[in-house]
Amino acid sequence: MEACNRTIVARMQSPVPLIPQLGAHLVAAGGKRLRPLLTLASARLCGYPADADHQRHVGLAACVEFIHTATLLHDDVVDESLLRRGLASANAVFGNKASVLVGDFLFARSFQLMTADGSLRVMAILSAASATIAEGEVLQMATQNDLSTPIEKYLEVIHGKTAALFAAACRVGAVVAGRSEREEEALDAYGTNLGMAFQLVDDALDYAADQQTLGKTVGDDMREGKITLPVLAAYHAADAQGRAFWERVIEQGEQTDEDLPHALERIAQTNAIRTTVECAQTYADKAVQALSIFPDSPIRRLMVDAAAYTVSRAN
Amino acid sequence: MEACNRTIVARMQSPVPLIPQLGAHLVAAGGKRLRPLLTLASARLCGYPADADHQRHVGLAACVEFIHTATLLHDDVVDESLLRRGLASANAVFGNKASVLVGDFLFARSFQLMTADGSLRVMAILSAASATIAEGEVLQMATQNDLSTPIEKYLEVIHGKTAALFAAACRVGAVVAGRSEREEEALDAYGTNLGMAFQLVDDALDYAADQQTLGKTVGDDMREGKITLPVLAAYHAADAQGRAFWERVIEQGEQTDEDLPHALERIAQTNAIRTTVECAQTYADKAVQALSIFPDSPIRRLMVDAAAYTVSRAN
Repeated sequence: MEACNRTIVARMQSPVPLIPQLGAHLVAAGGKRLRPLLTLASARLCGYPADADHQRHVGLAACVEFIHTATLLHDDVVDESLLRRGLASANAVFGNKASVLVGDFLFARSFQLMTADGSLRVMAILSAASATIAEGEVLQMATQNDLSTPIEKYLEVIHGKTAALFAAACRVGAVVAGRSEREEEALDAYGTNLGMAFQLVDDALDYAADQQTLGKTVGDDMREGKITLPVLAAYHAADAQGRAFWERVIEQGEQTDEDLPHALERIAQTNAIRTTVECAQTYADKAVQALSIFPDSPIRRLMVDAAAYTVSRAN
Repeated sequence: MEACNRTIVARMQSPVPLIPQLGAHLVAAGGKRLRPLLTLASARLCGYPADADHQRHVGLAACVEFIHTATLLHDDVVDESLLRRGLASANAVFGNKASVLVGDFLFARSFQLMTADGSLRVMAILSAASATIAEGEVLQMATQNDLSTPIEKYLEVIHGKTAALFAAACRVGAVVAGRSEREEEALDAYGTNLGMAFQLVDDALDYAADQQTLGKTVGDDMREGKITLPVLAAYHAADAQGRAFWERVIEQGEQTDEDLPHALERIAQTNAIRTTVECAQTYADKAVQALSIFPDSPIRRLMVDAAAYTVSRAN
């Protein structure tokens, strides 16, 4: 992971000073580096050697993180977020323009990293994932403020915006190790289901966690009229008064300061967080199940633990 | 070119309806398709066969147009432009969010098209160009409102934001035809110099053309405090009163309705348009010069004419 972090910092360099400046802001903000870790772990699980001659997984892990960071920069612009990982977001510090353009730069860099790796198969996987992410984000925008969004459509959104890159990050680990299609598929399924669980918990935390834990503003999703499972579950379980409340705040976007505590109360009353976390648990179980074709090993146990940890964040 | 347009429309498809909708808006807005034409022309100039078994240049031409369209979408967001090619810009119709996200989608699609082509050399050229475009755009943002920007830095900006993709579009034509490094370099030089001439003329037209010809709002660059050669030339040639004028409108960004006609007058008085167009002519001459290693042919004559036409737009 250290080698991956070094690659990230090195490839963030540019003769245009604002790019490494904004890059340093992002690196300082930290983040869990979950997606590159998945690439490194998957490569290891598939027996990719741990020596100096085998470093493809490091470059590709950095590449995955660049794609993710580019989408974060653009998300924060699209969502007008002021906080990211507990710090001022890049758009709040450097402005929307810089965030859009540096996002584009990181996206281009990610493709340079793929090209340097030289595997067409890897490129096909990661460029398809990049397109799917954008489709997921556009679909999310299209469902905004719309409480009639079916849960299946919400699941499609989070599959695109989150699970697709988790899946690709895992799958390329199998590709560099030269493993069979069956093993690739198993790791893709692990990543997909882990990503679904991760995003469901993230969406639950937006209505459950305090600002400190979350590292972003609580209630952001509500303010944006974002359609997530906690809201859909609360809306579906609500009485007439409750439905009118959600229609006003989410569909009409008419919100006052008292609406957030009120919303949290309604979410609690209808067990909407529990519903969301249970759904996340189902995906986490499928993620673990997908690993069963691999023999037991410390790295497999770590990946099983990651699935459990993903859900435990909500407790 | 028809085959290229078909590929563009086909690859703009997505199960998410907003993507082809916004795509149709862009296709309807037309545009000169200059960059994909450069790929097609360069391939032909290099003797790439014109038969059904040789269609790589078509896919790559579409790929180049996707990169360009993605950057246009993001540019219009960054510049807050309301017009593009004489029609309402995508951000004006669909909103900034959709423009950012669909731009990301097109960018990802361009990499899928490259991957489908399968040449690592082409991928290296186009992904490097994509990174250079983003660097050019960031550098342009950093020079905004700054009249002390050296002309060399302005030239670096337009090299990044425009000439790099022109160069890459031409170079990949030589690559698909399997020609020598020398011919690749010649086409790269043609594209670079043509792109410089093109952007210089574009920047001149922003202070010289009427809205009809330009297809965008005249004076946009001034309103944004963008540093272009017409402004730098007028500023450098100005007396104390003129310098104070430019400092107020470009550096302080304090503008009234009378400032645009006033600016156009000052630009005319100081021959700033002529200076800019002469600079463009120098680049156009270099572009033509770069083609001299290729034997005379109808396609070479067309490419020579393109250089002349680029500059003649300003007259």
